[in-house]
Amino acid sequence: MSERLIAVYEIPGPAAEAEKAARAIAFEETVEVPLDFPLPSRIREEIVGRVGPLSAIENGRFRVEIDFPAALAGGRIGALLNLVFGNASIWPGVRLVDIRFPESFLSAFSGPNDGVAGLRASLGVHGRPLLATALKPMGSTEKELAESAAAFARGGGDIVKDDQNIVDASFASFRSRVSRIAEAVAGHKCLYFPHLSGPQDELEERLRFVLGEGLKGVLVCPAIIGLDTMRTLSGRRKAVFMAHPAYSGAFYAERSHGIEHSLYLGTLMRLAGADITVFPNAGGRFGFTPKECRDIAARCRGPLGGLAPIWPAPGGGMNLDKTAALAQDFGPDAIWLIGGRLLMHPGGPEAGARAFRAKMPN
Amino acid sequence: MSERLIAVYEIPGPAAEAEKAARAIAFEETVEVPLDFPLPSRIREEIVGRVGPLSAIENGRFRVEIDFPAALAGGRIGALLNLVFGNASIWPGVRLVDIRFPESFLSAFSGPNDGVAGLRASLGVHGRPLLATALKPMGSTEKELAESAAAFARGGGDIVKDDQNIVDASFASFRSRVSRIAEAVAGHKCLYFPHLSGPQDELEERLRFVLGEGLKGVLVCPAIIGLDTMRTLSGRRKAVFMAHPAYSGAFYAERSHGIEHSLYLGTLMRLAGADITVFPNAGGRFGFTPKECRDIAARCRGPLGGLAPIWPAPGGGMNLDKTAALAQDFGPDAIWLIGGRLLMHPGGPEAGARAFRAKMPN
Repeated sequence: MSERLIAVYEIPGPAAEAEKAARAIAFEETVEVPLDFPLPSRIREEIVGRVGPLSAIENGRFRVEIDFPAALAGGRIGALLNLVFGNASIWPGVRLVDIRFPESFLSAFSGPNDGVAGLRASLGVHGRPLLATALKPMGSTEKELAESAAAFARGGGDIVKDDQNIVDASFASFRSRVSRIAEAVAGHKCLYFPHLSGPQDELEERLRFVLGEGLKGVLVCPAIIGLDTMRTLSGRRKAVFMAHPAYSGAFYAERSHGIEHSLYLGTLMRLAGADITVFPNAGGRFGFTPKECRDIAARCRGPLGGLAPIWPAPGGGMNLDKTAALAQDFGPDAIWLIGGRLLMHPGGPEAGARAFRAKMPN
Repeated sequence: MSERLIAVYEIPGPAAEAEKAARAIAFEETVEVPLDFPLPSRIREEIVGRVGPLSAIENGRFRVEIDFPAALAGGRIGALLNLVFGNASIWPGVRLVDIRFPESFLSAFSGPNDGVAGLRASLGVHGRPLLATALKPMGSTEKELAESAAAFARGGGDIVKDDQNIVDASFASFRSRVSRIAEAVAGHKCLYFPHLSGPQDELEERLRFVLGEGLKGVLVCPAIIGLDTMRTLSGRRKAVFMAHPAYSGAFYAERSHGIEHSLYLGTLMRLAGADITVFPNAGGRFGFTPKECRDIAARCRGPLGGLAPIWPAPGGGMNLDKTAALAQDFGPDAIWLIGGRLLMHPGGPEAGARAFRAKMPN
């Protein structure tokens, strides 16, 4: 029980209230008993979170570090989320902004299968960002989606993924659609990632089918299927996992509560086995700030035990005018995810892909 | 595509902005293309959400109904969450407050295995609330937890569950602990629900073990393992699922964003196969209002296709003085979840259980 995991929270003031809240979190996330519960001293000393000093930040709020025995997170994503943001998630005004892990905790995780280096090797593309698009709109026929995919591939696109809204009524229709699109990109140096969704107990079989088609990866929505579901699938099948943020906004969209953007979309996705993390870029339609986006990229790449760096994939409302900023903000190890504006190019997705590729450094 | 599912949102004003946001949600959650995308008319008419009239509510906010083709949710929890709160979750200020389902959508769900009637039949208890407690604090030995469970059972408690913070280092230690506690309550008319957690691909095996021990159900944290994971397990094994809200607070704790308390903790839990939904009662330490709690109970019991009613289980900071209010607010078909204050009874958990049972009507 000696190794500690440090969770950093921002909580509402004034100081006396913040102090009380911090102590309550330390109790709530471990022993979950009233503060006057007659705890045996071994539990009080070894199990209850230890509250560090408070420091004032903006808006009358305070930052505090609470450290927990790392063993309480048991080397598991689920136990980790429960420990650092289980009942604490229910308190208004509590935001988890950082977690510092001991190496022993991280060593239980294998992280991304491919990450930055693996995906570059698969594609044979070095020194420049990758260009990705999404197959949409939902309601399109298989044929229309396959044609868009082929055109994007011809134009030099690197990755085409299903839009996360695409729904297949059954496994049979999933198979039919995925085969058709896989065929359309076959022969091009372009990867196709179908959206892996459906009943929970069918996911692995669907993934096996995808890999059997010669495809290299999938799009998943970890907030929906569960972060540990992605990690488990990633541990069992050597696929590329592109994580989409659908349904996860509740965790970070309100800055006074939840989990810091970069912690959720960067660190937690990487820990849970994502190779690529999609997020709405600043200046698009979702209100992420430039700093929040840079922080996500930094957490994709910074040291995290032995876990390989992963790809930040800024997207959402991107157009040709914003490519210089994309190149500058994210550098070469990033995936430019361009949806509507690429598909809408007057010359179609092929010309669209060419136009965006032409904007890339190298 | 004719059957519609209606999602009700609250969004920030002023009216012109709200109008724009509503239209954006209708696009974002379906076709996810810019508003000027050249959509084929069949897609524009059949797929894109239809925005109803705005109505002003408090705080300069507006309520709006957006109806979607129910087929887009594909009879699946995951597709449903993606459809009604996928990218919309990422917009600050958007709160999903209600979903109205067509019967055809609900008929794809079997709902709770036991619900109110089934659990009453298992226990042979009728006409009064059930008394539940949590085994804690974490860090206690197996023997201490087993003794607490036995004492609670002797005192007339109905359900004893693991605290959701309890972590077992391995499947072996889970087996050992669960067996010991199961043995301690055996012979009493008291159910023990172990916390089902651990690696995602071990959950079903752990559940099989629990049922093999003669136990009737488990505690799960659906926000952590995934709502469809609970639904899948519940469909595959005839166990009672007691849903704990750990990690789910991000969805409802800030009233200006996320998903309405009762929709998340009531309707969605019931749809995902929970038999019991735990939530922090008003007047406890988490700031739920009395109305929010009543609404949760109402959604546990109100009509939802053919899905059986489930148990609201208010808990969190409950003590003997609050039992009259519990009885009045929730009536007989509720589970009183009393943790610390019951265990801390001067006479121990047995006397604690007796004291709370004595406060129950009947």
